[in-house]
Amino acid sequence: MSKVFVNIALSLDGYMAPEGMTLEHWDNPEYKDWGAKWAALMSWVFDQEFFRTNLKLGPGGETGPVNDMIRHTTERIGANIMGKRMFEGGERSWPEEAPFHTPVYVLTHEKREPWVRPGGTTFHFLIDGPETALAQARQSAGGKDIRIAGGADVIQQYLNLGVVDELEITLAPVLFGSGRRLFENLREAAPRFRIDRVIDTPAATHTLYVRE
Amino acid sequence: MSKVFVNIALSLDGYMAPEGMTLEHWDNPEYKDWGAKWAALMSWVFDQEFFRTNLKLGPGGETGPVNDMIRHTTERIGANIMGKRMFEGGERSWPEEAPFHTPVYVLTHEKREPWVRPGGTTFHFLIDGPETALAQARQSAGGKDIRIAGGADVIQQYLNLGVVDELEITLAPVLFGSGRRLFENLREAAPRFRIDRVIDTPAATHTLYVRE
Repeated sequence: MSKVFVNIALSLDGYMAPEGMTLEHWDNPEYKDWGAKWAALMSWVFDQEFFRTNLKLGPGGETGPVNDMIRHTTERIGANIMGKRMFEGGERSWPEEAPFHTPVYVLTHEKREPWVRPGGTTFHFLIDGPETALAQARQSAGGKDIRIAGGADVIQQYLNLGVVDELEITLAPVLFGSGRRLFENLREAAPRFRIDRVIDTPAATHTLYVRE
Repeated sequence: MSKVFVNIALSLDGYMAPEGMTLEHWDNPEYKDWGAKWAALMSWVFDQEFFRTNLKLGPGGETGPVNDMIRHTTERIGANIMGKRMFEGGERSWPEEAPFHTPVYVLTHEKREPWVRPGGTTFHFLIDGPETALAQARQSAGGKDIRIAGGADVIQQYLNLGVVDELEITLAPVLFGSGRRLFENLREAAPRFRIDRVIDTPAATHTLYVRE
């Protein structure tokens, strides 16, 4: 059966996005220094060969274990689920060939026809809540896995439903001080995970946590 | 010169103590399940030989890289700094031979004579703020390092002074959902660290971050 997973980079103090990195300030990375913080968070990825190829940034790049990890994560995804705000940000900034190449289920409150993009990405807009979206994602994933793409509130909803099997966390050695935290609003269940593998590099620590 | 460092275990969602683990509920680990959460956070330490010897828990225990890490951390400390609340909790629960074996500077607002314990621990009560405490700790540390022991608010004060050279973080694969976070109330400077070393074990990931 498909696994449900989260794949996210966090600052050492637990933020997945720095303060100021919003739709309103997208074009001003100097606003609250969000651009520099984001760059510090993601520096590990920009020179990876698979990432460069996938975003058509040109040839070359690293091909070690981090690159293998990115490829493996990308190839395991049969469907994505995301929130409305994440979609709206991407709608403005993704290239025409949106970078998912799977069905993407968008949790929203307004009905809208599916939006088909070149390259295999189709956005489906669902108004019946996260459990229905997950059921539909399972049907379309063809046995591959389902990524809860974000934002934080959507990931928290799925964590609170107890359906997240794996957390792929990249922890970067920078303190943001403010921004959007991944882990908030969680119920008291105190789920435990098993550390499945760690890839440690100078730029970040990549850990796969599997729900026990 | 002495380095200033923090050595702390965190849940995956960034808490150094679960909700309910307070002076009021110290004797009831079932309160909000704090005992089980604390055990999940600290499970990596209880079977380490150096820890067992230091707390006189009996012979035996693991002697691998985690044990070496604990010994190294313990032996590098020339002085500790802690907050009043942490001291008051320990005053009730530490054995007569308090487990520091160094001068301990307690940040407080009430004058009090130094409190000498057997085994080399003397608590000094300072009312002149964190910078004065650090200066005194440096004088007494004899070239060894200074540990900011806690609680969270005291660590945050020193992070905001920009004087913390190293963070030794143990990250345990459990989500607390609530409690006392380490990283809060930080200023906007976004300090970056270098990942100096990672020890990954099934129970926790131990990372040494060095300020760049």
